[in-house]
Amino acid sequence: MFSSDELLQQVNAALEAQASSRTPQSLYAPIHYVLSMGGKRLRPVLLLMAYNLYRDEVAPAMPAALGVEIYHNFTLMHDDLMDRAEYRRGKPCVHHVWGENAAILSGDTMPLLAARHILSAGMPALMDCFLETAIQIQEGQQYDMEFETRNDVTEDEYIAMIHHKTSVLLACALKLGAIQAGAPTADQEALYRFGEQLGLAFQLQDDYLDVYGDFATFGKRPGGDILCNKKTYMLINALSKATPAQHARLQQWLDATDYNPEEKVRAVTNLYNEIGVAALAHEKMNECYTLAEQSLAQVALPDSRKEVLLQYARSLMNRQS
Amino acid sequence: MFSSDELLQQVNAALEAQASSRTPQSLYAPIHYVLSMGGKRLRPVLLLMAYNLYRDEVAPAMPAALGVEIYHNFTLMHDDLMDRAEYRRGKPCVHHVWGENAAILSGDTMPLLAARHILSAGMPALMDCFLETAIQIQEGQQYDMEFETRNDVTEDEYIAMIHHKTSVLLACALKLGAIQAGAPTADQEALYRFGEQLGLAFQLQDDYLDVYGDFATFGKRPGGDILCNKKTYMLINALSKATPAQHARLQQWLDATDYNPEEKVRAVTNLYNEIGVAALAHEKMNECYTLAEQSLAQVALPDSRKEVLLQYARSLMNRQS
Repeated sequence: MFSSDELLQQVNAALEAQASSRTPQSLYAPIHYVLSMGGKRLRPVLLLMAYNLYRDEVAPAMPAALGVEIYHNFTLMHDDLMDRAEYRRGKPCVHHVWGENAAILSGDTMPLLAARHILSAGMPALMDCFLETAIQIQEGQQYDMEFETRNDVTEDEYIAMIHHKTSVLLACALKLGAIQAGAPTADQEALYRFGEQLGLAFQLQDDYLDVYGDFATFGKRPGGDILCNKKTYMLINALSKATPAQHARLQQWLDATDYNPEEKVRAVTNLYNEIGVAALAHEKMNECYTLAEQSLAQVALPDSRKEVLLQYARSLMNRQS
Repeated sequence: MFSSDELLQQVNAALEAQASSRTPQSLYAPIHYVLSMGGKRLRPVLLLMAYNLYRDEVAPAMPAALGVEIYHNFTLMHDDLMDRAEYRRGKPCVHHVWGENAAILSGDTMPLLAARHILSAGMPALMDCFLETAIQIQEGQQYDMEFETRNDVTEDEYIAMIHHKTSVLLACALKLGAIQAGAPTADQEALYRFGEQLGLAFQLQDDYLDVYGDFATFGKRPGGDILCNKKTYMLINALSKATPAQHARLQQWLDATDYNPEEKVRAVTNLYNEIGVAALAHEKMNECYTLAEQSLAQVALPDSRKEVLLQYARSLMNRQS
C-alpha cells in the first residue's frame, strides 16, 4: 500500500504533467497557477487511498483524483473572488493577478476539465456522484454567503452548510475511489460516511485554527474569521451561550465599523475563552471524528488494510496547518 | 416529423417543468430567471431536429437538448457579467438583479445541471462531445476578451474566435442528436460541419444586424458593437480595406473618449457604407451558409427527411431578430 506522502507526490506529479498544451495560453495560466499552489491534496489522496484499499496500483484512479482536486481548486478560486480575498496560501489570488474576468472565465473552465478527467475513468457512476456533489457544494457556498448577513444562524444550519461546502467532496472522493476499485456497495457507502464525518471534523478544526492556530504553521494570520464576523461554529455558539453581558460585548464588536483589527481579534478571542466555545468546538470535532472512525470500521476489510487511511485521518486531526 | 415551432414549444415546456425543488431557492432563482427569458432555443431545437431525422419521437433527446440550452444560458449569464452588460432580451441582467456574486455562483451551478442532463442520456459519447465543446466555448470567450484590447485582429482570427464561441455549440447540438439517435458516424460528422458553418453564418449575421438591424424587431439598440469598438467582421474589414483617409477617420472614432453615442454610431456606419464592408459581411455569410447546405446534403438521408432542418436553417438566415 502507498503511504500518504507517496500518494501526495504522485498527485503533484500528475497535476504538473497534465498542464495543457491548449490555447489560448492566457486562459490556462490562472488554472496552472492555482493548481501549482500546493496544499495537502486531501481529496485526491483520499480518493487514491480508497482505491488502494482494494487494488495494489493507483494509476487507474489518478484521472478521477485529478478531477476532484481541479474541482476543489475551482471552488477556491471563485470563493476567493466572491470574498474579494487577497491571498491564498501566501500568494496573491487569481483575480488580483489577472483581474476578475480572468478569475471568472478561467475558473469556469475548471469544472469542465475536472469532468473530463472523471469521464475518462469510463464509469458513469463516477460522473453521477461527482456532479451531485459539485451541485451540493454550490448550494453550501450559497448558504455560507447568506449566513454573512444573518445573525440567527443555528448550529444545525451551520453543520448543514459545512456538510455541503466541505464534507461532501471528501466523501465523494472516497466513494469515487471505492467505486472505481469495484468495492462492494456497502463499503462505498461506509467510506462516504467516513468522509462526511471527517470533513465536518476537519472544517470545525479549520474554524478553531483560524482563532487559535499559529500564524507560522497555519499559514494564515489568526482571526480572519473574527474580522469578517464569519458565522463559525464558535461565533454561533458564543452568541447562543453568552450571558447577557457577554452577548452585549460580543454584539458591540460585531457591529463595530471603526476599530483596530488586532484589538477586535484579541477581544473576541477573550470572549470565546470566557464563554468556553473552544472546548465546545473541540467536543463537536471529536464527536464527528469518532463517527468517522466508526464508519471506517464498517468497511469490510481487515484492519491492517485500513491502517494507512486511519493514520492519515488521525494525522489530519493533529495538524497545526 | 416535428416542425420547428412544435419543437420550440416542447423545449420551453421541458425547461419550465425541470424547475428545481432543490434548496436554497436563492441559488436557483437566477437560473430560473435566465432560462425563462425565452429566445429562439436554437441549440435544443437543432438537437431535437437532428434526432428527429432518424427517430419519430423526440422525448428521449430532451435531456441532452436541455443540457445544451442550460449551458448556453450559463455562457450568456457570465458573458454579461464580464461585459458589465445591463440588459439581456430586454430584461435586467442577473448581476443587476441579484448582484455579481449571485451571477458567479448561480452561473457556476448551470454547467453542472447541464452535464447532469447530458449524463442522464446514458451515452458517454454525448458527454465527451459536450465537454470538449464547452471547453472550446471558454477558449473562444477568452479570445473575444483579448480582441477588445488589440487593434491587429485578423479576419482569420476573428473567424476562429466565433467558431469557438458560437459555432461549436450549434455543431455539438446537432451531433448529440445524431449520436443519440444512432446515426452513422459519417452523418454525425456531416451534421457537425453543417452546424459549424451555420453557426458562422449566424454570428456574421448577428454582427451585421447589430449595425443594420431594426431596433423593434432585433430587440437591441443598433450600434452596440460600434460603441464598444467590438472587433466584428465589419470593423476588422473596415480597418483593413479603408483608404488612409477613411482609416484615419475610423481610428479617430475608435480612440474617441468623449462623444455623442448616436453620432459615433452614425459616423462609423457611414464609414462602413463607404468602405463597403456590409457587402463583404454578406458575401462571407453566404459563403458559410452555402457550405452549411453542402454539409447537410452529405447526410445520407432522403431530401424530404431533411426538409424541416433545411427550412429552419434558411429561416435563420432570413431573420430580422
